[in-house]
Amino acid sequence: MLEELRQQVVEANQAIVRHGLVLSTFGNVSAIDRAQGLVAIKPSGVPYAELKPSDIVVTDLDGKIVAGSLRPSSDLDTHIVLYRAFVSIGAVVHTHSEYATIWAQAGRAIPCYGTTHADYFYGPVPCTPVLSAQEVQQAYVRNTGEAIVRHFHSAEIDPESIPAALVAGHAPFCWGTTLDQAVHHAVILEFVARMALHTESLSGPGRGISQHLLDRHHRRKHGATATYGQGNPQTK
Amino acid sequence: MLEELRQQVVEANQAIVRHGLVLSTFGNVSAIDRAQGLVAIKPSGVPYAELKPSDIVVTDLDGKIVAGSLRPSSDLDTHIVLYRAFVSIGAVVHTHSEYATIWAQAGRAIPCYGTTHADYFYGPVPCTPVLSAQEVQQAYVRNTGEAIVRHFHSAEIDPESIPAALVAGHAPFCWGTTLDQAVHHAVILEFVARMALHTESLSGPGRGISQHLLDRHHRRKHGATATYGQGNPQTK
Amino acid sequence: MLEELRQQVVEANQAIVRHGLVLSTFGNVSAIDRAQGLVAIKPSGVPYAELKPSDIVVTDLDGKIVAGSLRPSSDLDTHIVLYRAFVSIGAVVHTHSEYATIWAQAGRAIPCYGTTHADYFYGPVPCTPVLSAQEVQQAYVRNTGEAIVRHFHSAEIDPESIPAALVAGHAPFCWGTTLDQAVHHAVILEFVARMALHTESLSGPGRGISQHLLDRHHRRKHGATATYGQGNPQTK
Amino acid sequence: MLEELRQQVVEANQAIVRHGLVLSTFGNVSAIDRAQGLVAIKPSGVPYAELKPSDIVVTDLDGKIVAGSLRPSSDLDTHIVLYRAFVSIGAVVHTHSEYATIWAQAGRAIPCYGTTHADYFYGPVPCTPVLSAQEVQQAYVRNTGEAIVRHFHSAEIDPESIPAALVAGHAPFCWGTTLDQAVHHAVILEFVARMALHTESLSGPGRGISQHLLDRHHRRKHGATATYGQGNPQTK
Repeated sequence: MLEELRQQVVEANQAIVRHGLVLSTFGNVSAIDRAQGLVAIKPSGVPYAELKPSDIVVTDLDGKIVAGSLRPSSDLDTHIVLYRAFVSIGAVVHTHSEYATIWAQAGRAIPCYGTTHADYFYGPVPCTPVLSAQEVQQAYVRNTGEAIVRHFHSAEIDPESIPAALVAGHAPFCWGTTLDQAVHHAVILEFVARMALHTESLSGPGRGISQHLLDRHHRRKHGATATYGQGNPQTK
Repeated sequence: MLEELRQQVVEANQAIVRHGLVLSTFGNVSAIDRAQGLVAIKPSGVPYAELKPSDIVVTDLDGKIVAGSLRPSSDLDTHIVLYRAFVSIGAVVHTHSEYATIWAQAGRAIPCYGTTHADYFYGPVPCTPVLSAQEVQQAYVRNTGEAIVRHFHSAEIDPESIPAALVAGHAPFCWGTTLDQAVHHAVILEFVARMALHTESLSGPGRGISQHLLDRHHRRKHGATATYGQGNPQTK
Repeated sequence: MLEELRQQVVEANQAIVRHGLVLSTFGNVSAIDRAQGLVAIKPSGVPYAELKPSDIVVTDLDGKIVAGSLRPSSDLDTHIVLYRAFVSIGAVVHTHSEYATIWAQAGRAIPCYGTTHADYFYGPVPCTPVLSAQEVQQAYVRNTGEAIVRHFHSAEIDPESIPAALVAGHAPFCWGTTLDQAVHHAVILEFVARMALHTESLSGPGRGISQHLLDRHHRRKHGATATYGQGNPQTK
Repeated sequence: MLEELRQQVVEANQAIVRHGLVLSTFGNVSAIDRAQGLVAIKPSGVPYAELKPSDIVVTDLDGKIVAGSLRPSSDLDTHIVLYRAFVSIGAVVHTHSEYATIWAQAGRAIPCYGTTHADYFYGPVPCTPVLSAQEVQQAYVRNTGEAIVRHFHSAEIDPESIPAALVAGHAPFCWGTTLDQAVHHAVILEFVARMALHTESLSGPGRGISQHLLDRHHRRKHGATATYGQGNPQTK
C-alpha cells in the first residue's frame, strides 16, 4: 500500500539527517496521499539509517494505522492536524534543528531580517503561544498541532506563504507541497534562524526588512510572476 | 578479568571522541561490574585511537588496582564516589565537551528551556558550588565527586532523573545504567547546553518551560508510562 | 565563444561551494572579457555540481544574451553595473555567506578590527543604505548595483582597496582582478565578518585598529612596496 | 643543513592546518637549533600542502639567511625576538586561529575560566598593549616580538608557565620546548579562547577560577609533582 510514497518518506527522513537538521533521533517526516486520505510517517525511535519502506507507518486522517507493524512517530497527531487544516500541503517535516529550536525555546517568532528569509518565508516565522496545563495534559500532541493552526488562523497567516511554524518551548514544524519542498524549507529555516540570531547580536531586535523588499524577493521565487531558476522556481 | 566490560569501555571512550565531545585528551569513561564491585576505567593520557582492552585499568571501589599495568585516569576518584553514592548507575562519562564546559565555567546550572532537554533531564542540570581551598588542596579529585553527591542530596535531585552534573570551573560528568546510555546522555547534554546558551542570547536568562510540559515530555520517554520508541524507550 | 572563460566561471562557482560560502543555491560568480565587453555568468537555479561551460550564459554590458540557452542569474544586472563602474575588476562573486550576510542584515559596515582584515580590505567593508520603495519596485537588481557604486563614490572608497560591499538587508558582493582573487576575497570577507562579530561580543562596537597599523598591513601585501609571498602578493 | 629539523618544521606547519588553526595562509611555524643558533621557518606565502624541507628557510639569530632560496615568513623577526628572550623555548607557532584572534582583536587577555585553561596556562593569556605609530612604522615585525617580551617581563610572567601571547589587533603567538608542544599549545589556546568568550556571554566578564584550583590543575600536568599521563605529562 502506497509503496512509492513510503520509499519517498524513507528518503526524506534520511535527507533531514544528511542536512544536519537532526539531533539524536529528534525528527520525523511524513507525506500524505490526498486522493486516499492516507498519511505515511516515520516509526518512533527507529534509527534513520536502517529505515525501510515497510517500516513506514500508514494511517488515515484519524490516526488509525492501516499499514505497517511499528508504532508511528509520537508526533503523528500534530502532523494529522496540519494535514487537516492546511489542505494544500503534501508533506510535513519536524526537526529539533539547532537554531530554529533556539528561537522556539525563546518563544519568539523569527523576524525577516534579509532577502534569504524573504525568498522563502513571506514575513516572520511565527511562534505559537505556550500551551496551557490542560492542553499539555490532555491530547498534548494533537493540541500542539491545534496551537499552530489556531495561530495561523487568528493572525491571518497563509500557510503557503509561510510554510513553517515554531512551537514554543519545543521546536519547528515545516511543510510543503512535496516532500522535497518540505525538507528544503526545513533547511532554509535553519539558515535564517541562525543568521537572525546573530543579526540581533549585532544590532539588537529590530523590525526586519521593508515591506517592499519582502514583496520583491518573495514574488521573485513564488507565484505567477516568479523569475528565478529555469522555470521550476517552487522546488529551487 | 572483566574482558567484555573492558572491551566495552574501550568502545565507549572511542565513542565520545567520535561524537565530538573530546577536546584533546580531556575525557574518560568508566563502567562498573556491580556484582564484583569492580570499576573499569580509561588509563591516563593514552590516545583514544590506540586503546586496547588490556590498557583499561580495573580497580575496586577503594581505587585499588586489580588489573592493568597502566596508571588509571586522574579522575578515577570522582568516578568511584559517584558509583558509591548513586547505586543504580552502571557507567560514568567525563568530558570537557565545549558548551557543557562553558556552563560549568560560568558556574551556572543549565535551565530547562525546551522539550529536547525535558526528554532527558527532568529539570535544570545542576552545577556544584565552587570547592574550598581545603577541598582543592586535599583529595581534590575525590572532593569533586563528593561535591556532586552532596549537591544532589541537599537539593533532593534524583540522579536517575537528572543523569548529569556540572562541576563549577571544570566540566560535566554524566552517567547512566549502561555505557551506551551514559554516552548518550553526554551527547544530549552538549546539545542542550549549546541551545540553552543561545536561547539566553535571544531572550535573556529565564525560568524555562512550564512544569506540566516538563512532566509530559520526561514521562513520554521514562518510567512506566513511556510511549516513545518501539518498546525500549530508555536506550533511545 | 569565450570557452576558456566559461570553464573558469564554472570552476569559480564550484569553488564558492567548496569554501562553504553558499547556502542552498544563493551564490553566483561571473567574469568579464574586457577586450570584447562580454560577461560570463552562472545560469539561474542550476545546481553547482552539474554546471558545464555551455551552461554559462554570456551577455554584453547591456545584459543582452550572446551565448547560452539558459536564463542568466537573476543577479546579472548587479554584476553588470559593477563591471561598468569599476573598470579595473575582472570578476564578481555574490554569495549569502553566513557572517557577511549577518552584517548586511544588520545594515552595518564591518569595522577593521585586526590585521587579517587590514591585509585585504583597507578600512571598513561598507554597507549600502537601504533602497527606497521605488528603487526596489523598479529595476531592483540594477539598483542594487547602483547603490554599491553610488556609496563607493560618495564615500570616496577605492574599489581596488576595498574589494567588497554589503548590500543592506541582503548579502555581500566581492570582486577582484581575476576570478581567483574575487573568490579569495569572498573567503576572507567571511572570516573577518565572523571574527568582527565575535570581537564586538567581547568588547562592544569599537573603532578598530589604528590607521598606522592598517597602513602597515595593507601595504605589506599590496602595491609597489609589498613584501609578502614569493613575488606574487596580489594572488596570495 | 638541519635537514631533520626542516622536515619537522614542514610537518608542524601542516599540523596547524590539519588542526583547523589556519585561515587562508595566515600561519607559520619555526623551530630553533640552540646548539647552532639557527632558526628554521616556513617561507612566505607558499601553500602548506606543497611545502618541502628544502623550502624551509634557515636563518641565524640576526635573521641572516644561511640556507634556502625562498623568502622567509614575513613574521620571522617576531620569532627571532622570542627565541632570543625566552631561552628555554624550542619552537614558535603563529596563527590567526579564529577565537584567539578575536581576543587579540578585542585587545583583551583571556581570563582563566576553567581547568582546561589551567592545565596549560598558569593564569590569563596576556595581550600586549597596542603598538605606537613609531613602533608600527619602524621595524614593525621586530617590535611585535619586543612588545610580547616587554609585557612578559614587566608583568613578571614566566613564558614557560604561560606559553602563549596575544598581540593586540593582530593574533596569537605560542611556543614550547618542542615543535609538538608548541603546536599543541596553539590547539589548546584556541579551545580555551572559544570557551572563554562564550563563558562571558553567560555570566559576563569575571575573575576566573580560584588561585588554589589554578595551582592544583597546573601542577597536575607540569613540574616535579605532575601526576597526569603515563610519565610524559609535558607532551600530553
